[in-house]
Amino acid sequence: MKIYDWHIAPNPRRLHIYVAEKGLNIPLVEVGTDKLTLSDEYKAKYPHAMVPMLELDDGTCIGEAMAIARYLEALYPDPPLFGTDPKDRAIVDMWEKRVNEEGMLAASELFRNTAPTFADRGLPGSAEPIPQIPELTKRALERMNRFFNKFDGQLADKPFVAGERYTVADITTLCAIDFGKWTDLDIPEDCKNLRRWYDDVSARPSAKV
Amino acid sequence: MKIYDWHIAPNPRRLHIYVAEKGLNIPLVEVGTDKLTLSDEYKAKYPHAMVPMLELDDGTCIGEAMAIARYLEALYPDPPLFGTDPKDRAIVDMWEKRVNEEGMLAASELFRNTAPTFADRGLPGSAEPIPQIPELTKRALERMNRFFNKFDGQLADKPFVAGERYTVADITTLCAIDFGKWTDLDIPEDCKNLRRWYDDVSARPSAKV
Repeated sequence: MKIYDWHIAPNPRRLHIYVAEKGLNIPLVEVGTDKLTLSDEYKAKYPHAMVPMLELDDGTCIGEAMAIARYLEALYPDPPLFGTDPKDRAIVDMWEKRVNEEGMLAASELFRNTAPTFADRGLPGSAEPIPQIPELTKRALERMNRFFNKFDGQLADKPFVAGERYTVADITTLCAIDFGKWTDLDIPEDCKNLRRWYDDVSARPSAKV
Repeated sequence: MKIYDWHIAPNPRRLHIYVAEKGLNIPLVEVGTDKLTLSDEYKAKYPHAMVPMLELDDGTCIGEAMAIARYLEALYPDPPLFGTDPKDRAIVDMWEKRVNEEGMLAASELFRNTAPTFADRGLPGSAEPIPQIPELTKRALERMNRFFNKFDGQLADKPFVAGERYTVADITTLCAIDFGKWTDLDIPEDCKNLRRWYDDVSARPSAKV
């Protein structure tokens, strides 16, 4: 198997961190170009036109960072990063979905609707131009603020987002916060629990990949 | 266990259909009000303020329709609605995530930013007013159009969204399309594969719940 990757992008990073935490070694194929686009060759091969994508030896293409990670979890269960029993797995799944919709997608909305390099790329994965909507800037900032505060509350009495163990919910949260930094947005000063957690998970070797 | 439900809403419907397909019987607690809001009592109990939510007998609250469904899948594996082996499960997971982000969230964006009854409720789950953004109407329509066409293509040579079997990817796709109808949007005439599939899955008894 191999991973089609755009090394600087936030969604591929979710998978980089997952793979590092598992201690796996899966070949990467870089498909980003120096024009901040995916290569034409990749888009022809994979019209969904997003990264990361895992190609199996039989040619099956699996997209979506967390669908790939869950597939790898079935093959390599230790250490468990999706929870340990049905209830724990449900809590991890719930928090990972929340941070994806409330953090990752908000950070993406903010970046794509403000960055001059992404003019006409207001949404991912589209071949047609999608104009930026400046009115989304304020809303995306509000979304990010709600995300910061909700997750700060969640971390008030827990070491990790989904409880006692490091999981994929932490991976997506870290990637969402670091994606926010692309638009100079940082964790508010008064979100002390989230800041403590951020320092902890950022210090893990997996965060460096 | 019991499910906190807002019976008319699209995300709870994903779980209704899942539960019906599994043949389960789980008590429902209606928490929608006739003002098209969640009850104050529910929001006080569950500040995340979204539905559906599964409460376990030990008081654990699990949110997010598909996190709940996956939890139920672990308890009641037959018939399998999340795939049958790691690769098949990954393909189901990928398509379910796609339809959630490209269909459900697009339909939600369209509805919340146009419906007069949802003025100041541009996003779900917020206690503060979130003004509608009229510019999102056009973009959301484009998103829905891309969604219809992508899924029409996917269904050209397959009976169901993720392949040979009915799965949660079909459930979310059905709910996204029917959510689009809230804003008078229907499957384009030329999306014949998607229309054929829609008629098939809408005829299942589970679609009536």
